[in-house]
Amino acid sequence: MIEAAALRARGHVRRTPLLSSPFLDEIAGRRVLVKAEVLQHSGSFKFRGGWSAVSALAPGVRARGVIAFSSGNHAQGVALAARLHGVPAVIIMPSDAPRMKIDNTRALGAEVVLYDRAGEDRDAIGARLAGERGLTLIKPFDEPQVIAGQGTCGLEIAEQAAQAGVTRADVLVCCGGGGLTSGIALALEARAPGLRVRPVEPAGFDDTTRSLAAGRILRNVALSGSICDAIVTPEPGRITFPIMQRLCGPGLVVTEDEVLRAMALAFARLKIVIEPGGAVALAAALFHGAGPEKGGDAVIVVATGGNVDADLFARAVQFGASI
Amino acid sequence: MIEAAALRARGHVRRTPLLSSPFLDEIAGRRVLVKAEVLQHSGSFKFRGGWSAVSALAPGVRARGVIAFSSGNHAQGVALAARLHGVPAVIIMPSDAPRMKIDNTRALGAEVVLYDRAGEDRDAIGARLAGERGLTLIKPFDEPQVIAGQGTCGLEIAEQAAQAGVTRADVLVCCGGGGLTSGIALALEARAPGLRVRPVEPAGFDDTTRSLAAGRILRNVALSGSICDAIVTPEPGRITFPIMQRLCGPGLVVTEDEVLRAMALAFARLKIVIEPGGAVALAAALFHGAGPEKGGDAVIVVATGGNVDADLFARAVQFGASI
Repeated sequence: MIEAAALRARGHVRRTPLLSSPFLDEIAGRRVLVKAEVLQHSGSFKFRGGWSAVSALAPGVRARGVIAFSSGNHAQGVALAARLHGVPAVIIMPSDAPRMKIDNTRALGAEVVLYDRAGEDRDAIGARLAGERGLTLIKPFDEPQVIAGQGTCGLEIAEQAAQAGVTRADVLVCCGGGGLTSGIALALEARAPGLRVRPVEPAGFDDTTRSLAAGRILRNVALSGSICDAIVTPEPGRITFPIMQRLCGPGLVVTEDEVLRAMALAFARLKIVIEPGGAVALAAALFHGAGPEKGGDAVIVVATGGNVDADLFARAVQFGASI
Repeated sequence: MIEAAALRARGHVRRTPLLSSPFLDEIAGRRVLVKAEVLQHSGSFKFRGGWSAVSALAPGVRARGVIAFSSGNHAQGVALAARLHGVPAVIIMPSDAPRMKIDNTRALGAEVVLYDRAGEDRDAIGARLAGERGLTLIKPFDEPQVIAGQGTCGLEIAEQAAQAGVTRADVLVCCGGGGLTSGIALALEARAPGLRVRPVEPAGFDDTTRSLAAGRILRNVALSGSICDAIVTPEPGRITFPIMQRLCGPGLVVTEDEVLRAMALAFARLKIVIEPGGAVALAAALFHGAGPEKGGDAVIVVATGGNVDADLFARAVQFGASI
């Protein structure tokens, strides 16, 4: 499925570069290779899954349009994929979502339907719209074609790591519901078995790390209050978790200060913009690299998204410059 | 020479991506393709010229080392190229250069020699060191092997534009002494004759634009006071100017506010960090695109460098978000 998704993606999904800097290598104590998914269309890897899911639909089904629940990167990825296929997209967002995210999703051609978090049932609204218009729901991670699309990132990592002479390394992936983490793990299992995926999460929202350690799905206690909002999900997915359980190494957990420092270092040394939720893997590579689990002569990091507002980014780079 | 430089660069110089965003296309009123040289090693295109010049030296000459005068991107490009060749680099900088630039250049393995702008003769210091140690001077732009190295960026643009279906367009290049501008122009003359290079400069420091209009080399009145310090030079080079005269279209001049807005839009829409001097071409594409000189259905922009400090970058993105 991942190979088929890669064929459908050719010429549409950007092959993102693997970046590096001697300054980051020095901090981490080993080679750090950063897969810059922030440069993907729509500003995050989510376009891969959106493109895969939309392009996999039968033409007659696709023509009726797609629907997604999201106020973030998945919304933009699906909206852009639908627009490029010339089909309608409906995105259901809470009415208190940031104005900029609503505007961006609309600017990508989607119809945004707002609902009141307190008084309205999101799923009921979605089901009604889907039924009335024949829309297909694109789930953010627990959906095979979405996982296959995210897995195309893993195919690229396998090729690019080999070109860089790296055959044994940890691949640190910012993890929400696990769509990208499990997709990359599946691709690497087939193409680069010396590369081991490890999910990375922010402290306090480490459902996947705890679930992997416990051997069963555990939930987060809180679902808000993290600057890493893009990767805060209630729990790992029903489809993604068994894949991660079979293929991934232990999870890693980083602090918000480490995330801000990683964002500042990516700004200063790689010249890319990473949002907090997209920087947890880089933070782990830079600041958690020297522990007993350190393996290989390199660490590969996926910088998953760059959709961050100016004030928060300014705070991160100034914080980084001050220490 | 450019083709030979590209052969020497293979596996060492990064092939930078050509980025785009539907949001930028809408502002410009046409397709905007951004060659992201900020992602080049050392954070700017200058590594291309540095690598080309160092790699072109005879091994015995190269082993004695290289020397450059620069407090900016050229220093870092030459320092990194020398380090990767395993040869010494001496960089001569004014003692009042920003601490961070001095530290970065040292961290790249170069020996930094500081001089007092008021009381010491930079050229005399350089000549003495070069004579004593047998170092080879690498000039920042008026040097054929440096121009050839920058020209490798033009070879990539020719290929990437063709892949994107663009055969007729202006290629806007941030212009200081003209090394990159003339190098790209030479490469495109041979490989993509429908692409026309135009230099872009900040208002008040538009020596190349005025020189091209006058048909002879004219100097800038001021040499400091621009946020675009990386591309402020006294006048176009003796080697680069005739090339630009023969091959380039008229220059374009942008304001500092336009530069800050372009930096903010590159942050928000492309997820890359551009320094002010590296953003003038994008500013011209976004805000000077609708004039009578508009040609082609696309405009190609070189984002030349990303070495900007946190405070200035924070100011730019917050300024951009406020308007």
